[in-house]
Amino acid sequence: MNATAQCLFAQRMEGVPRSFIREILKVAVSPEVISFAGGLPNKELFPLEELQECAEFLLSGSDRNVLQYANTEGYLPLREKIAERYAQKGLQVNPTNILITNGSQQGLDLLGKIFINEGDSVLIEEPGYLGAIQAFSIFKPRFTTVPLTPDGIDVDLMQQAMQMDKPKLAYLIPNFQNPSGISYTEETRKEVAILCEGKPIFLVEDDPYGDIRFKGQRKHSFYHYLPEQTILLGTFSKTVVPTFRLGWIVAPDDVMERLIIAKQAADLHTDNFTQRLIHQYLSDYDVDNHIARICQRYGSQAEAMINAIERYFPKEVQFTRPKGGMFLWLTLPEWQNAMTLFNKAIKENVAFVPGNPFYVNKTEVNTCRLNFSCSNEQKIEEGIRRLGKVMYSL
Amino acid sequence: MNATAQCLFAQRMEGVPRSFIREILKVAVSPEVISFAGGLPNKELFPLEELQECAEFLLSGSDRNVLQYANTEGYLPLREKIAERYAQKGLQVNPTNILITNGSQQGLDLLGKIFINEGDSVLIEEPGYLGAIQAFSIFKPRFTTVPLTPDGIDVDLMQQAMQMDKPKLAYLIPNFQNPSGISYTEETRKEVAILCEGKPIFLVEDDPYGDIRFKGQRKHSFYHYLPEQTILLGTFSKTVVPTFRLGWIVAPDDVMERLIIAKQAADLHTDNFTQRLIHQYLSDYDVDNHIARICQRYGSQAEAMINAIERYFPKEVQFTRPKGGMFLWLTLPEWQNAMTLFNKAIKENVAFVPGNPFYVNKTEVNTCRLNFSCSNEQKIEEGIRRLGKVMYSL
Repeated sequence: MNATAQCLFAQRMEGVPRSFIREILKVAVSPEVISFAGGLPNKELFPLEELQECAEFLLSGSDRNVLQYANTEGYLPLREKIAERYAQKGLQVNPTNILITNGSQQGLDLLGKIFINEGDSVLIEEPGYLGAIQAFSIFKPRFTTVPLTPDGIDVDLMQQAMQMDKPKLAYLIPNFQNPSGISYTEETRKEVAILCEGKPIFLVEDDPYGDIRFKGQRKHSFYHYLPEQTILLGTFSKTVVPTFRLGWIVAPDDVMERLIIAKQAADLHTDNFTQRLIHQYLSDYDVDNHIARICQRYGSQAEAMINAIERYFPKEVQFTRPKGGMFLWLTLPEWQNAMTLFNKAIKENVAFVPGNPFYVNKTEVNTCRLNFSCSNEQKIEEGIRRLGKVMYSL
Repeated sequence: MNATAQCLFAQRMEGVPRSFIREILKVAVSPEVISFAGGLPNKELFPLEELQECAEFLLSGSDRNVLQYANTEGYLPLREKIAERYAQKGLQVNPTNILITNGSQQGLDLLGKIFINEGDSVLIEEPGYLGAIQAFSIFKPRFTTVPLTPDGIDVDLMQQAMQMDKPKLAYLIPNFQNPSGISYTEETRKEVAILCEGKPIFLVEDDPYGDIRFKGQRKHSFYHYLPEQTILLGTFSKTVVPTFRLGWIVAPDDVMERLIIAKQAADLHTDNFTQRLIHQYLSDYDVDNHIARICQRYGSQAEAMINAIERYFPKEVQFTRPKGGMFLWLTLPEWQNAMTLFNKAIKENVAFVPGNPFYVNKTEVNTCRLNFSCSNEQKIEEGIRRLGKVMYSL
């Protein structure tokens, strides 16, 4: 049957990248490895006791509907809470324009379904979030890549790319971008919004890390400048816990209508129990206080990583200095190769993600993503020391 | 922007049916309505206290990984439990050939993604499960429909359809089919397997209700006859609780490899906490005992419905006599219309699902789906009495 099965698979699966990270990390399983490779929040900060209280409250109640099938859009009081949190940031979002998804990753799948015909252009940052590249790839778009500068996307090149390729969607992470850690300046945000205004394009603003800011001032969302053309993706994975796979998507009415149809076809609805659990947590506890603790911890871990980089890495290695989020980005000298560094680093028991999967059509790259959210300062110091040693030996 | 958004949507969304049930049930919200329309398990039977114990155990432990990101395939001990349960039924399934999904609905979406090119044929029963019609429709197949007989799918017509249309997948629900309540005889199962053997087709056996048998003997799965060409879909929605959206898909290695890529692109993984919760429940409690209670209850509710139908409906109305599951199926006299009956029935405060959404290309139908799992015997008697009264007035 194997030969037969091969000829049955759909064409759309041919271009979809396998999980590069999954494959390369098979070699990084030893407990001696200090890993900057993952994209995990720090589990020490999970509100375990609080969620336990909430679960007990919900399951000891008499409302058995907490375990029943539920509506596709999501638990309304949770969507109202999300709208409230947007309002605190000055964004007016109607709860009926919020759809609860299985993490923001599902938002990407649903957007791919409702917008992308084969060959349609989707504009993304270079380097770009690999989860978005994977999700969109299923629908066979042409990717239009626009490089990041230290101030965010290169607006001149974005303008050229839009004229040339007419992308339907521009997928952007303006806050503490994954993988680069770069944040868009206010000026860049404004210019991007002006560039898109009135054109047949949606700005898809993915913002998993916006709340995890440990330095500097909050900037405006594209939604502030261009609400009718902005689709927002959000998640509780980084601010509460990842396992529940609770994310959401904010979209205008006609987009929402199709998203709901696509969501229903995809899995009927997202777990209503975990939606109510998160809602209970947001109602009973001060999540902003909790987020402040996360910011403090990640901030000092990021600082430890930057200090160690300055101490242990060759001066020609460039790196970003993120003001939030979970990642920083290295650029090795041009003649060096990230996979070569990775293979040698693994032998010294230190891991990271070579930049490769964050590019749509480059295979030889000299960039690397380092995660600082889930190692403590001592491990960071030691891991960076090991990595520096490998760099000097290249 | 509205005009512009319209021109941005992907072609694939054009053919996708809206939720017929969702739309028609907007008129059935009054508390006086006795509804046989939904497809809900009886919430009185949810193991609320047991799940509370399990949640407390998991969240009071020191393992914070219960709340962390997890692998795409699913929690291995849960997949092992599922394999054990198959083994009890005589089916040898390797846990590595099981992928945990968000309900079996997501299994349908993933199968659509990896198999269906636009215009490919997918064979389904007529009437067929509307969730499958919705999920596959996104990928623009041609549906090849084959009528059900009281013994299961019409094997002669299936053979003709296979010769003519060369379907890649045959999506079948051999046990207590939704919507008809019909079960395939052992003979039909064997004939279907023989028909497909060695041909380039996968049998997709969806089995949400197989355990909910209240009469007769368990029959063999297609997997028993044709393991290499059978893909199994399963779910805990009907045996434990629906809200967790915990289902699974069993597939051969090369299919599994692509399913995992598609699942990762779709939402990274299914909630690991609820996977562990169900695993804990299956470890600590006797789920077969629990399922026996469900069977007993649904069995007596089905009997009450059949008795009431015999008493209150015109003799020319035909109906199925399911030995399990949650639904039975009415066939009105040919000159009658299910939507007409529905509109009149609603005025008498009784609801059901007109057969329409279970057909791919019929709009005028004389069939109706009635759910018996979530009303008690008194409500069933009264609802059927009301419906019979309306039938006599047609």
